[in-house]
Amino acid sequence: MGVEIERKYLVNKVRWEQSGKGRRRFYRQGYILSDPIKTVRVRLSDTEAFLTIKGQTIGAIRLEYEYSIPKEEAKELLDNFCSSIIAKYRYEVQYGDKLWEVDEFLEDNEGLMVAEIELVNEQETFPLPDWVEREVTDEPKYYNANLAVHPYKSWKD
Amino acid sequence: MGVEIERKYLVNKVRWEQSGKGRRRFYRQGYILSDPIKTVRVRLSDTEAFLTIKGQTIGAIRLEYEYSIPKEEAKELLDNFCSSIIAKYRYEVQYGDKLWEVDEFLEDNEGLMVAEIELVNEQETFPLPDWVEREVTDEPKYYNANLAVHPYKSWKD
Repeated sequence: MGVEIERKYLVNKVRWEQSGKGRRRFYRQGYILSDPIKTVRVRLSDTEAFLTIKGQTIGAIRLEYEYSIPKEEAKELLDNFCSSIIAKYRYEVQYGDKLWEVDEFLEDNEGLMVAEIELVNEQETFPLPDWVEREVTDEPKYYNANLAVHPYKSWKD
Repeated sequence: MGVEIERKYLVNKVRWEQSGKGRRRFYRQGYILSDPIKTVRVRLSDTEAFLTIKGQTIGAIRLEYEYSIPKEEAKELLDNFCSSIIAKYRYEVQYGDKLWEVDEFLEDNEGLMVAEIELVNEQETFPLPDWVEREVTDEPKYYNANLAVHPYKSWKD
């Protein structure tokens, strides 16, 4: 259940390195379905796994349904149902009273870092950490589902 | 986890009516994804709801992963993520030491009845109830995912 309201920013790596960072987890994720109006994602970390269904993004708002699944089944789903896989480290950083999720992409998306913040409503204001750069909330090429098939390393400037 | 080995038969309605039937439940189900190699199904009954991922059917064998989800979320997923919905009554009937699932389809698939039996291996033998007719395991038009988009009432003889 739920509506996800999220804003997304590129990360300045130098300033990020100078910040305290935070604890990180390794994620592997893939898409059973990925089209512009809905996605079905499998995500596996060292400690847990989830199946997540998301609807179309309109502004910063998106329908989202997430279910915990056994890690072993997530592995099988990644192997048998997902054609392209994303690997990344995820950091969780508290800034002000907000939790930021910072993704350091690996493999075909190495070099890309993106920070996300989840909001209670679209109008909510919040302070930006100094390691945050340009907002990319509305740029589909930064959606993880798109990075899986058109990875960062394949982009032309 | 999960390999589904299943055989599917048409049902003779006259002989079915003469049998004891069994308890029935009402199902609504739809497909978030439905293509020849994988499906993501939402199923809602009066008492429970499931999200089910299935792979390609090869012979009678199919990879299957099923997760219980809240009924309210299943309703939302059916409304917002599934374009066509199947409605049916499902009967469960014990015959010999096997459980048969008999589907009486409703709405756009009214008139169709199909019986399914789940097996331990593809070679397993079992007695057929007298209300079972022709086997349709290998006929894709009887897959529920296909009945959702090409319902029985639209078929030409």
